[in-house]
Amino acid sequence: MADSSWTSSAESLKGVILDLCGVLYDSGEDGGTPIPGSVEAVKRLKASDLKLRFCTNETQASRDKFVAKLQKMGFDISVCEVFSPAPAAVAVLKDRGMRPHLLVYDGLLSEFESVDQTNPNCVVVGDAAGNFTYENLNDAFRVLIGLEKPVLFALGKGRYYKEADGLNLDVGPYMKALEYACDVEAEVIGKPSSVFFHSVLSDMGLQPHQVMMVGDDLVNDVGGAQLCGMKGLQVRTGKYRPSDQQHRSVKADGTVDDLAQAVDLLLGARAGPL
Amino acid sequence: MADSSWTSSAESLKGVILDLCGVLYDSGEDGGTPIPGSVEAVKRLKASDLKLRFCTNETQASRDKFVAKLQKMGFDISVCEVFSPAPAAVAVLKDRGMRPHLLVYDGLLSEFESVDQTNPNCVVVGDAAGNFTYENLNDAFRVLIGLEKPVLFALGKGRYYKEADGLNLDVGPYMKALEYACDVEAEVIGKPSSVFFHSVLSDMGLQPHQVMMVGDDLVNDVGGAQLCGMKGLQVRTGKYRPSDQQHRSVKADGTVDDLAQAVDLLLGARAGPL
Repeated sequence: MADSSWTSSAESLKGVILDLCGVLYDSGEDGGTPIPGSVEAVKRLKASDLKLRFCTNETQASRDKFVAKLQKMGFDISVCEVFSPAPAAVAVLKDRGMRPHLLVYDGLLSEFESVDQTNPNCVVVGDAAGNFTYENLNDAFRVLIGLEKPVLFALGKGRYYKEADGLNLDVGPYMKALEYACDVEAEVIGKPSSVFFHSVLSDMGLQPHQVMMVGDDLVNDVGGAQLCGMKGLQVRTGKYRPSDQQHRSVKADGTVDDLAQAVDLLLGARAGPL
Repeated sequence: MADSSWTSSAESLKGVILDLCGVLYDSGEDGGTPIPGSVEAVKRLKASDLKLRFCTNETQASRDKFVAKLQKMGFDISVCEVFSPAPAAVAVLKDRGMRPHLLVYDGLLSEFESVDQTNPNCVVVGDAAGNFTYENLNDAFRVLIGLEKPVLFALGKGRYYKEADGLNLDVGPYMKALEYACDVEAEVIGKPSSVFFHSVLSDMGLQPHQVMMVGDDLVNDVGGAQLCGMKGLQVRTGKYRPSDQQHRSVKADGTVDDLAQAVDLLLGARAGPL
């Protein structure tokens, strides 16, 4: 089933970055369930000579809680290996002396505890899910429109993600709503921003051409990684849709059934012909 | 205060179209209050030889209830003089045999009673205000993304409007959210759509150059009318903001303090020098 032509460059790879939701696990109200074979696949990658990092646009929980949830599912993963938008946003806000009005999920608030939030001079929007009430979006809008120069940060710009009960709107549509209402362009912190990917590469000590990104989101994972100079592999799990194959601007370097198959082919190609 | 150069073309005018909210009245939780001088101004227009129509993107109430509210405020206005998006949408839906999933304000539902809503093959989004919960927007998104060819109708595309307690998000930002989530472009029914303005002109039996639109919304009232070949006059009431004067693409033919001043200058110019 899988086109394995992408494995021809596997020998020169020195690192892999994995997306989390839709690659390692499917989310749901119960916290989510591992995708079959993914716990073992992560183990195999860790046992190989490849450097491994995890890169997520997850903004519904603090990194601590989020990683604890993955460990409970059986994944060998630690906080320092995970890159997510909120800590990156905190660094940007402090660097520029900005005080955010937060429109985020309750579980993410603790990430911003060290940032002054009085008299806001910008808005940060994350995947707030049920917190995206009319009133809350309107409050964020009023802060923005009241600023002489509205500044909007978005923690990712995903369109939607898949949960057990179906597809759910992600932060992107709400970012677009605020952009249109206030005639501004958001600064995206997280995938597919090159700044975000480069912070991961820098931590790995690798060049873009030495690293492959594996994700279920064609635009944010695959497209973002490719813009950065990495290879982008798409899995047919999570939010993958067959129509992704006909996308007008992004074409994955390869497509595989799931992470288990990706790791099989990748490590197999590196081992060389028997 | 007012630049009255626009009145030079007043003699050739044969009709006037008035926006409602922000021109005749300011909305609010109590149903709204007339803007000083506007009841009298409408009376004077009706007593003149100019044809008069009202054109609104109001989609929070059926036309019947909406006009009754205005009559109670003292306005001389009847249902057949008012053009609003919902009846126009119903006509389009029936013409194309489309069955809508409605994301609108409760008060508007009765306008769609005559339309088959089983097994939806399109989404209609209006100014749903408090009904814009995450769950409701997600439901509309799921209908759209599940269609082979998603079709989205928007009842207007306004960014925001002014109520007694401040600015509120209008339908436009939510239209943009769904457009982005499903990678579609909405068909806008209502201002600033030329189709919508032409239906009003047709009812008046007038050509665009014979008619002036008066509104508080620079893009939807003034810009929409101008694209159609009408003159567009902006009032400094409702959602008017001083920054409108520096708008990058729309420039009003004239700007006046309020409707009362517009009618004073208009009728004065038509009477000619004393």
